[in-house]
Amino acid sequence: MSNKLVIGMFGFGVVGQGLYDIIKTKDLNLEIKKFVIKNQDKKRSLPSSLFTTDANAVLQDPEINTVVELIDDADAAYDITVKALKAGKNVVSANKKMLANNLESLVNIQHETGSSLLYEGSVCGSIPIIRNLEEYYDNELLHSVSGIFNGSSNYILSKVFNEGQSYDDALKQAQDYGFAETDPTLDVGGYDPKFKLAIVAYHAYGLYVNPDKILNIGIDKLGDADVKFAKEKNLKIKLLPLAKEVDGNQIVLYVLPKFVPKESILYAVENENNGVLVRAAFADEQFFYGKGAGGHPTGSAVLSDITALRYGYKYEYKKHLVDKPVEYTTHYQLRVYLRFSDESLLEKVNFDNIEERYSSKDFNYIIGQISLKEIIEKKELIDQQGVFIAQMD
Amino acid sequence: MSNKLVIGMFGFGVVGQGLYDIIKTKDLNLEIKKFVIKNQDKKRSLPSSLFTTDANAVLQDPEINTVVELIDDADAAYDITVKALKAGKNVVSANKKMLANNLESLVNIQHETGSSLLYEGSVCGSIPIIRNLEEYYDNELLHSVSGIFNGSSNYILSKVFNEGQSYDDALKQAQDYGFAETDPTLDVGGYDPKFKLAIVAYHAYGLYVNPDKILNIGIDKLGDADVKFAKEKNLKIKLLPLAKEVDGNQIVLYVLPKFVPKESILYAVENENNGVLVRAAFADEQFFYGKGAGGHPTGSAVLSDITALRYGYKYEYKKHLVDKPVEYTTHYQLRVYLRFSDESLLEKVNFDNIEERYSSKDFNYIIGQISLKEIIEKKELIDQQGVFIAQMD
Repeated sequence: MSNKLVIGMFGFGVVGQGLYDIIKTKDLNLEIKKFVIKNQDKKRSLPSSLFTTDANAVLQDPEINTVVELIDDADAAYDITVKALKAGKNVVSANKKMLANNLESLVNIQHETGSSLLYEGSVCGSIPIIRNLEEYYDNELLHSVSGIFNGSSNYILSKVFNEGQSYDDALKQAQDYGFAETDPTLDVGGYDPKFKLAIVAYHAYGLYVNPDKILNIGIDKLGDADVKFAKEKNLKIKLLPLAKEVDGNQIVLYVLPKFVPKESILYAVENENNGVLVRAAFADEQFFYGKGAGGHPTGSAVLSDITALRYGYKYEYKKHLVDKPVEYTTHYQLRVYLRFSDESLLEKVNFDNIEERYSSKDFNYIIGQISLKEIIEKKELIDQQGVFIAQMD
Repeated sequence: MSNKLVIGMFGFGVVGQGLYDIIKTKDLNLEIKKFVIKNQDKKRSLPSSLFTTDANAVLQDPEINTVVELIDDADAAYDITVKALKAGKNVVSANKKMLANNLESLVNIQHETGSSLLYEGSVCGSIPIIRNLEEYYDNELLHSVSGIFNGSSNYILSKVFNEGQSYDDALKQAQDYGFAETDPTLDVGGYDPKFKLAIVAYHAYGLYVNPDKILNIGIDKLGDADVKFAKEKNLKIKLLPLAKEVDGNQIVLYVLPKFVPKESILYAVENENNGVLVRAAFADEQFFYGKGAGGHPTGSAVLSDITALRYGYKYEYKKHLVDKPVEYTTHYQLRVYLRFSDESLLEKVNFDNIEERYSSKDFNYIIGQISLKEIIEKKELIDQQGVFIAQMD
């Protein structure tokens, strides 16, 4: 029935080990022939004959028809992926940064070579959102895709809102538990969810936007005053990427903290879990929930991609090829809460109207309407210490 | 890019009307040419030229390449579906009973004719669970599929547990609001979720089991004592179908009420909503949530099937064709709560062991281990007035 896959894997962490173990126990018609690793000397749990530091031992082995790329370095990952695709091998990757920055060229290379590149593991771990957007939701009918895409930030926010921890303590705990990197900027600064959003936008609407052009503001400026404000109104703050269709063929993309009410299903997504909220014509809300981060959830998505390759599955990128293409816009009004200390900020950032204004010796905030374009242009002013912005419904 | 679909639709209810409206407003490369209806005289919101009572006006129209079947009568629906497939037309259906009873022959007809039959709308409305089981989860790696598949029963249970209503009052309200039929047996007796479970089992494990062979016990014998018992232990009762792999290649299938703790994500699924819980190797829990019942959720699934047909999508039924087939078993131990009035029941139903025994003037219950096989053989004794059974963790 299925094609036998002979796999060369780049990187050997918890995912690689886990994949190896499960592939051994199950009758999946798969074999991992080689792991390419950086450090040959490191002690391994598997026979040393399985390991090499020479990428070509995989890329030039004609018997290996599938490359699984699980390394952190985005540039190295891109180089491996391109070489493997051009060598006629199918590739599975979970490197969101590499993918978000290079999707268009990677799609072209797939079309030229006929090779297949799958990357479900790059967005929200075990949640099969790419597959669902690719296969199930017609872009004409898709109103929006949003959700909790970053487990580390969500873990921190859960600790802050449910256990009354300060942002700094919660961040430290997340780092101790391995939910956040030593340099947490990628996560708490909203870059990681932005990369995922760029990939989602491509499969949801056939729209490629370079991540540099997408606004990302994270939770790293969150202060006790903002938490107090939220709690008084029975709201939680969540870090939410959004891809949304406005007037027919225009698409808005951004990552911002948002005040979320009890009624929202995202209110209940806690700790390192992820949830993806899809709004489509007719369907009302559809919600996909699962473990977002960590070796095993990512491993499950990688494994699903691998098993799909046995049947020659490839993304068709239909939506990118539709007659009526959509376009990216930043002409979009948001209602936001902006907390600040220095009044002069308001002279530099143009709100279209201000609904509420609060000031005290400790902090000031306004609630008002501002355009996405303005937030992007004034990002440096808005995304600085002493200032916190979050979207309101 | 996509193939133009010319659609003939059987039935014209809220789904048909909604589909017509949305297809008109969107650029989907679809056209609904004819509705086949029972009653020509009924007043319609659309031009009468669109309606006919003659099935052949659709089945024998060579221009119509897609049949959408939305009628209640399972036998008539099967007849239409078979004729349409044999006439080389693709078919979209949401008739769970028709599908569950005839899946094998319908799959054979698809293989003979090359036509495609899609039926996402038949299971959990807008939740794309069939597609995900078909495309994303390898049966070797799938531990279990469970969840809340029946909106009517869940609506009733929500009213009982959250608003303290009696089962009878809640049922009446569900009927008044149109969440339950005048004869609610299909829903509250667990037949509807059983049909869905049979379809799920086919796409999850490639296993076809005739619904007559699958145990279904519903919530229609639920009593105040059972609710009191659950609430004292901070549990809710939910009606849960389960498809589960046991020892490698054996599959257990049944529909039973179950005591669900706060920690379970199903605990939070209320009213007419549906939720599907998938457990797979590595992935831990994955949860799909959405509106289960009603015209619009079903319409969204039907519409997704229709749009997929523009690209020639068909289920591949890979799992049904795997080298190592799985088999259905009823040799499976369950831990259950059994409430009864007549002590003699215990002499007729064989428990493997009894952990707890409670009796009072109002009611008695035991908690113990019993085999699925025994429950099936003694169903008439267990599923009668004055007796209520529910699974415990």
